[in-house]
Amino acid sequence: MAAQASTDNNDHLVRSSDSQHPANLIPELCRKFWTLGWVTGTGGGTSIRDDDLVYLAPSGVQKELMKSEDIYVLSLAQQSDPKNRIYLRSPPSLKPSQCTPLFLAAFTKRGAGCCIHTHSQWAVLITLLLENSPQSQNKNLFEINNIEQIKGFGKGFQKQGALGYHDTLRIPVIENTPHEEDLTESLEEAMDKYPDTYAVLVRRHGVYVWGETVHKAKTQAESLDYLFQLAVEMKKLGLPWLSDIS
Amino acid sequence: MAAQASTDNNDHLVRSSDSQHPANLIPELCRKFWTLGWVTGTGGGTSIRDDDLVYLAPSGVQKELMKSEDIYVLSLAQQSDPKNRIYLRSPPSLKPSQCTPLFLAAFTKRGAGCCIHTHSQWAVLITLLLENSPQSQNKNLFEINNIEQIKGFGKGFQKQGALGYHDTLRIPVIENTPHEEDLTESLEEAMDKYPDTYAVLVRRHGVYVWGETVHKAKTQAESLDYLFQLAVEMKKLGLPWLSDIS
Amino acid sequence: MAAQASTDNNDHLVRSSDSQHPANLIPELCRKFWTLGWVTGTGGGTSIRDDDLVYLAPSGVQKELMKSEDIYVLSLAQQSDPKNRIYLRSPPSLKPSQCTPLFLAAFTKRGAGCCIHTHSQWAVLITLLLENSPQSQNKNLFEINNIEQIKGFGKGFQKQGALGYHDTLRIPVIENTPHEEDLTESLEEAMDKYPDTYAVLVRRHGVYVWGETVHKAKTQAESLDYLFQLAVEMKKLGLPWLSDIS
Amino acid sequence: MAAQASTDNNDHLVRSSDSQHPANLIPELCRKFWTLGWVTGTGGGTSIRDDDLVYLAPSGVQKELMKSEDIYVLSLAQQSDPKNRIYLRSPPSLKPSQCTPLFLAAFTKRGAGCCIHTHSQWAVLITLLLENSPQSQNKNLFEINNIEQIKGFGKGFQKQGALGYHDTLRIPVIENTPHEEDLTESLEEAMDKYPDTYAVLVRRHGVYVWGETVHKAKTQAESLDYLFQLAVEMKKLGLPWLSDIS
Repeated sequence: MAAQASTDNNDHLVRSSDSQHPANLIPELCRKFWTLGWVTGTGGGTSIRDDDLVYLAPSGVQKELMKSEDIYVLSLAQQSDPKNRIYLRSPPSLKPSQCTPLFLAAFTKRGAGCCIHTHSQWAVLITLLLENSPQSQNKNLFEINNIEQIKGFGKGFQKQGALGYHDTLRIPVIENTPHEEDLTESLEEAMDKYPDTYAVLVRRHGVYVWGETVHKAKTQAESLDYLFQLAVEMKKLGLPWLSDIS
Repeated sequence: MAAQASTDNNDHLVRSSDSQHPANLIPELCRKFWTLGWVTGTGGGTSIRDDDLVYLAPSGVQKELMKSEDIYVLSLAQQSDPKNRIYLRSPPSLKPSQCTPLFLAAFTKRGAGCCIHTHSQWAVLITLLLENSPQSQNKNLFEINNIEQIKGFGKGFQKQGALGYHDTLRIPVIENTPHEEDLTESLEEAMDKYPDTYAVLVRRHGVYVWGETVHKAKTQAESLDYLFQLAVEMKKLGLPWLSDIS
Repeated sequence: MAAQASTDNNDHLVRSSDSQHPANLIPELCRKFWTLGWVTGTGGGTSIRDDDLVYLAPSGVQKELMKSEDIYVLSLAQQSDPKNRIYLRSPPSLKPSQCTPLFLAAFTKRGAGCCIHTHSQWAVLITLLLENSPQSQNKNLFEINNIEQIKGFGKGFQKQGALGYHDTLRIPVIENTPHEEDLTESLEEAMDKYPDTYAVLVRRHGVYVWGETVHKAKTQAESLDYLFQLAVEMKKLGLPWLSDIS
Repeated sequence: MAAQASTDNNDHLVRSSDSQHPANLIPELCRKFWTLGWVTGTGGGTSIRDDDLVYLAPSGVQKELMKSEDIYVLSLAQQSDPKNRIYLRSPPSLKPSQCTPLFLAAFTKRGAGCCIHTHSQWAVLITLLLENSPQSQNKNLFEINNIEQIKGFGKGFQKQGALGYHDTLRIPVIENTPHEEDLTESLEEAMDKYPDTYAVLVRRHGVYVWGETVHKAKTQAESLDYLFQLAVEMKKLGLPWLSDIS
């Protein structure tokens, strides 16, 4: 599945003394995410796009132990054939992440600069609560409003500014598939149906969150996990996710 | 909204080798608060007053990554016009926090030396539980008594000593507004109505806590969050917040 | 209340390069306990006895920031008059902990080498659950059996070996008082009534745990907090604390 | 119970500057597990096998403070008599872990390279929930399906590949015994009955998890704890562990 683009391994692409270089940022983010329970047991992942270059955490690595040399690099422009993905740089004994086409969807369809995939239990519980909700409710859409943290999200694709306190945050839910890469089509459909969303929940699996920059993707992922956790606690306490305050 | 007071940027105001200097303390506190889940996704903030000078965390920064050079400084004496706030020092590419007038209220009306704003989920859940409580109950006041941790609070404005174990801790709740700075009036009203409180809850948003010193503000914020979490757990277990022990 | 025993301040008593010296261990333990939520907002405390000398964390200090020079030292032999406690070493601008007579009770009545006082929310919730339990139940005794972690406790005062899996762990509960030092009498009564207990719960307040050594006190405090948390979760899930397995 | 194999103490077996040496890895893993609440109060343990040599954490040590010199070493080949276990290296003042025969079962019956034993509260709660489930349910088997994290487990003993999203993960439960070593027989029976399992739950006690390598054992232990926690939260929210999605 992964073809090597060059005879040398282009290690220079992941070697930098700059702490803000993607190959240094991804391991640092993953260490932080591990402490949050987002990438337990090699689950989840993170990718950063710098112009045409995409940096990706590999598959099956303990995320709190990841190093710069574990990072894959590919060129967006060269991805003509999704069945034969070309990597500019592949770590010798690792496998590319099955999340790759999903990260690429955020980069190509939304111009995102960073995409974060977590297995946060709060995200999974939200999708389970929706699945088990009454017939009358849309089981494929998480909605919450009138919570200050909603202001942590941008208004949407190519729009200026952030959501307001009274706005309803809507995160679509797609069904999980046996092979993660097979999520790509439904993820892209969800992006088309909810063009302003910065995240898609995957039922019984987790969430994909992105943003124009690493800063945006990371703080939106945090805000979203905060809202998922709050919403689960609200459910335990019999409090509704939507209210009529205005 | 933010006018620059001087042609140079007064960077000396935030440069100190003293770990207890406000420009060093605020980042350290914010790192700690991030691990507590109080300032997730750039939410929340902290401000310290040293005599006439007020040091403020900026808006929109990842709180666990904040640095001394990100700190705003203003002079209390020069704040004649709230529409045209004068900063002695503004970080080049950041925005001042919308919490600023709320922090200033704690400093000017209560002589506080530090004010902490968190988005703690426990605080938000308390305000939601009150909002959904029976008609007969005051939805704008959190009350708890007969818990040892209540002794972590001072008796009140210009009073000596701490609350006792049997005293009832009362924290007023104000309604949230779309723009955080618009909370100022109702926050000040709550301070007037409950002159001895060291904190005001903001519905569906979080809490503001202050104290005469950094030490007092921080330990009162911790004690309050402890009580909020305890009260949420008590609700799950069917235990009342107020009791008749004496 | 605190009289100074010497004109110099005996600072040598708290200065040591040995990481296992009580004046170094107490701050290290308190930092750890802060991360566990046991000593939030200056609550709780720790004391170590080395032969005749007792080392005590002070009152009102942020426990995660405590330093060796903050430690009080007293001699057990010289404590003839509890109203006029003599300290061999007092930090200049701090106050002795109100827990002092309770720590001393563990040292003098049980020969303990270390005593830990926490405000753990799990401990407080256990006392609240007991208080609200049906009339038929003893509201002053926490009992749990058939949980492996019970083996983390010694059999009792001057007894060899540890509790077994099938043994019932019994922790007495005493009522809280407005002044912490006034707990001393009822704590000593509980020690007399349950001579083999290594801990006493204080209603709506927390727990005191001790052990022959720092290692024993610390690991018993951890095992006990584990059991308190487990018991609260069991209550949420409708699972009984006592069972008939044998 | 522990006989010394050599007059010198074979300290060279636990001295290495390689961070991946078992005597360095075990303390590092235990520090991590302590922060996860898996080895509270000296509970739990970890063992690594390197070819014929087995490295074991000792009994009764604070797991976050463990050092390389605390590690026991034995030779699998020399274990003819379980009543008279021969250690190539024994730390001077410690006791071998009662978990030893259980770790050895994973190594000899399953060819495991690492075995982790935790007292995780989530594991204990799962066994309690099963114990209290209706008569019609198998109280000795935890089953969950259609959760992405299930893919964190291998298909089973001497099988290639990982479980799929739709596969049902099955973890057998054995009853606890007063002496941990007496669990060996029923653990081995569970291994025989469920030859593909990588873990066995012990009622009211915790879980044993193993894997071909340290990496596999650790990530499977994390994935399993994630699923246990999720399953407990699902129970609180009235969500079933098994579903018919396919």
